[in-house]
Amino acid sequence: MSASLIFRTAHIADLPAIIALLADDALGREREVLANPPDSRYIAAFEAICADSSQRLVVAELQGQVVGTLQLSFVPGLSHTGSWRGQIESVRIAAALRGIGAGQQMLEWAVAQCRERGCSVVQLTTDKSRTDAHRFYQKLGFEPSHLGFKRKL
Amino acid sequence: MSASLIFRTAHIADLPAIIALLADDALGREREVLANPPDSRYIAAFEAICADSSQRLVVAELQGQVVGTLQLSFVPGLSHTGSWRGQIESVRIAAALRGIGAGQQMLEWAVAQCRERGCSVVQLTTDKSRTDAHRFYQKLGFEPSHLGFKRKL
Repeated sequence: MSASLIFRTAHIADLPAIIALLADDALGREREVLANPPDSRYIAAFEAICADSSQRLVVAELQGQVVGTLQLSFVPGLSHTGSWRGQIESVRIAAALRGIGAGQQMLEWAVAQCRERGCSVVQLTTDKSRTDAHRFYQKLGFEPSHLGFKRKL
Repeated sequence: MSASLIFRTAHIADLPAIIALLADDALGREREVLANPPDSRYIAAFEAICADSSQRLVVAELQGQVVGTLQLSFVPGLSHTGSWRGQIESVRIAAALRGIGAGQQMLEWAVAQCRERGCSVVQLTTDKSRTDAHRFYQKLGFEPSHLGFKRKL
């Protein structure tokens, strides 16, 4: 893509646009709540993310519009001789920008952030049904080496 | 199993026993370093975990001996209407206690911690080669709904 994306930490004013991106998705539309102002649970979650220096909620901006989002977590651990892990969650790109390299730009930027923080691995999981996402991450050098298990509480 | 396990936050003095557990594993033995005192990278990682209130490094103790370990991470996020996730990493149980319910006790305790912290889901990944672990987690009510991708830096 020709126009350049800007990546930055999200502000509270970005919250409606981020929630709209989370909801504009085959799985997300079942589980997100669109309202203006945002549901108070999103505001509480946003504040919890901001209060935790290991978390970074990110937006991609194009010509002043929020067109992408993801959340980075930097996780210290003992395994692999005391390695840090970068973890990526809740990745979304606006529908109009899918398939033209915007997602790739955003992920490469996120991987670079993990490298800067001293992480030796970047990890993420995607639902088994997201076969497009699987191809996308493999193209970016991610190996589908693990199974991801979830238990709802 | 009849004897009862005690679960608690790890102390620095537990570090050699935890590293020994991490290394006593088909994949772990290739990537951990056993030394006394522990390699300085483990000490730095231990301090980073202790400094982060979202992380909790846990040991299981039986008759004064460390016989199990795992790391809990509590991750705030916007997805699923602002849900917290509990994440479990680096799970190990001493070889002598495998297959007799000790791992199950430890995981159920960990899930209860996530519930107490208000998480609505508990997540973990395991290497695709760990077929015993896959059966273990499914028995505990975890669904293998996701693929886990890693990219080494």
